[in-house]
Amino acid sequence: MASGVSPEEIVLSEGEVLALARAFLMAHGLGEAQADAMARTLCAAQRDGCTSHGLQRLPGTLDTLAHPAFNRHADPRPEAVTPAVIRVDADYGFSILAAERGLPLLIDSARTLGVALLAVNNGFHSTALWPVVEEIATHGLAALSMNPTHDWVAPAGGTRGALGTNPIAFAWPRPGRPPYVFDFATSAGARAEIAQRRQRGETLPPGWGLDAQGRPSTDPAAVLAGSMLPFGGHKGSALATMVELLAGPFIGDRTSRQSAAFDGGVKAAPCHGELIVAFNPAILAAATGDSEAAAEDLFARITAQGARLPGDRRYAARAAARRTGIRVPKALYERIRSLTPPQT
Amino acid sequence: MASGVSPEEIVLSEGEVLALARAFLMAHGLGEAQADAMARTLCAAQRDGCTSHGLQRLPGTLDTLAHPAFNRHADPRPEAVTPAVIRVDADYGFSILAAERGLPLLIDSARTLGVALLAVNNGFHSTALWPVVEEIATHGLAALSMNPTHDWVAPAGGTRGALGTNPIAFAWPRPGRPPYVFDFATSAGARAEIAQRRQRGETLPPGWGLDAQGRPSTDPAAVLAGSMLPFGGHKGSALATMVELLAGPFIGDRTSRQSAAFDGGVKAAPCHGELIVAFNPAILAAATGDSEAAAEDLFARITAQGARLPGDRRYAARAAARRTGIRVPKALYERIRSLTPPQT
Repeated sequence: MASGVSPEEIVLSEGEVLALARAFLMAHGLGEAQADAMARTLCAAQRDGCTSHGLQRLPGTLDTLAHPAFNRHADPRPEAVTPAVIRVDADYGFSILAAERGLPLLIDSARTLGVALLAVNNGFHSTALWPVVEEIATHGLAALSMNPTHDWVAPAGGTRGALGTNPIAFAWPRPGRPPYVFDFATSAGARAEIAQRRQRGETLPPGWGLDAQGRPSTDPAAVLAGSMLPFGGHKGSALATMVELLAGPFIGDRTSRQSAAFDGGVKAAPCHGELIVAFNPAILAAATGDSEAAAEDLFARITAQGARLPGDRRYAARAAARRTGIRVPKALYERIRSLTPPQT
Repeated sequence: MASGVSPEEIVLSEGEVLALARAFLMAHGLGEAQADAMARTLCAAQRDGCTSHGLQRLPGTLDTLAHPAFNRHADPRPEAVTPAVIRVDADYGFSILAAERGLPLLIDSARTLGVALLAVNNGFHSTALWPVVEEIATHGLAALSMNPTHDWVAPAGGTRGALGTNPIAFAWPRPGRPPYVFDFATSAGARAEIAQRRQRGETLPPGWGLDAQGRPSTDPAAVLAGSMLPFGGHKGSALATMVELLAGPFIGDRTSRQSAAFDGGVKAAPCHGELIVAFNPAILAAATGDSEAAAEDLFARITAQGARLPGDRRYAARAAARRTGIRVPKALYERIRSLTPPQT
């Protein structure tokens, strides 16, 4: 057993985490392909210490499975709309399977053309964006991804929700190393973090949200009933608007407001689109090969002064998990087991 | 004459501003095509109230013209590297002419393929990004643009410059209206604003910069000698890093650090690359035409609560200028005239 494991935790192998998640999802009627894709991405997040997008999402998938539109047997098929644009309709299953199935075509197109995009439509989206952009980068491509959520976030200068928490993720391939990867919400705080602070009786940092009357508030309950705020003032607000447009109307899918309306109070994962753009650095790179070195020099200058690259904490957690296993809170493990009816 | 014009201002027509800038640039040996492109973009900024990127840049172009690599007679020619990737080498002239010459190919490719990109290389870049993305949006396309600058900005958690002020601009086409457009630096403050505050003896807002020892400072002189900070903490820092990578190594061009080294103390406009990605919303739009309506609904929900769309102030200034002319500080006008030797 890993050192420093608390009595409230158990340690599982990657295979055990995958089996746990897969059994849960299939016991609730999810088709095998969807169950596998979800299990892989939840396991990756748990392994990398991103517990907010890890196994703790599993019990919540029951709310998503309860949405009247949810399709347990979605079988998404990618389609090349143009040589540079791939579309996959998730057909009201989880987004992640649709995204995974679109990646090979996206990667081929981007490799040939230098840039290509993948639009995932009509997917219930409950996973982090970074596993997909990281995967693309392991093929030597850069990738940018984004999606709307629900309209919980007020625009800068506003008083009520109009934008989603709208994450943006980006990955850049690095020779002989894991890619440079970031993935963050364009809201000042994550909605899950606000909910956790409410549970723990804590206040919020100033600038995270407004109450239902549009007044600044540090009370998590008031902000959850009111609206969140974008990070970085009007700049973050503008980026969140870009995410709405590019991963909403641009790909013929729902804005955060439309996604919230579609939910109809079920509290499922938001159902909407996801945009993934892939770029091939080999197409325009400096002929001398200096491009790769210039990027590495940039990273070295960031880390040499004690600043962290965004993916580093995850990669450290991943390395630790590979040595000593994946930690799972015992209570969560037992809850998942108790919610997994025996399969007939 | 326009009402409310101060005795320190004069009012010129668009034609007069263009002629003023053109005469200045050609008197200093710039080829006609470059002079025209620069004059147009400086005039557009002056007209739209973006005075930081307007005529006040004109005297500073002399520093750029003094760079030993600057090419007064650059004649950039776009080349389709792939059907989706257009490259224009600015050949060490001003970027704007190269960008303008690449736009028709970019627009054609994006219209056909759904997504395409334009890489502008080796351009001295002293203009705002918004005029180009706005232009693309008037052709019914969305556009995203970015470029490195010089390595004045410390990464979040760092102590010294490694990133540029790295602006990001985005435009979305709107039926029967000017496009939605934003354009902002990923640094907390603009470098020109910091210099202006130093001149006026003012301090900086907290979070704008560090002194040369890496300590937080609100002294403009100390920050100009030390480093600026990104907007929005680690999120803005990550975005600035993405700009470095996509508009630097990805297109085979300089990072902000390499651009600063290339300047060699001349204090020319930064010489580097620019990336412009164009997206055709007609390719993936909802078949019902709801996509356009969904975007308009988003804008309406932002403005209905008193929040502003990023381009609105510029469009109001533009409308006012079209009614009553373009205001130019008298001292700036006279300085430009006095720096314009009579043409032989």
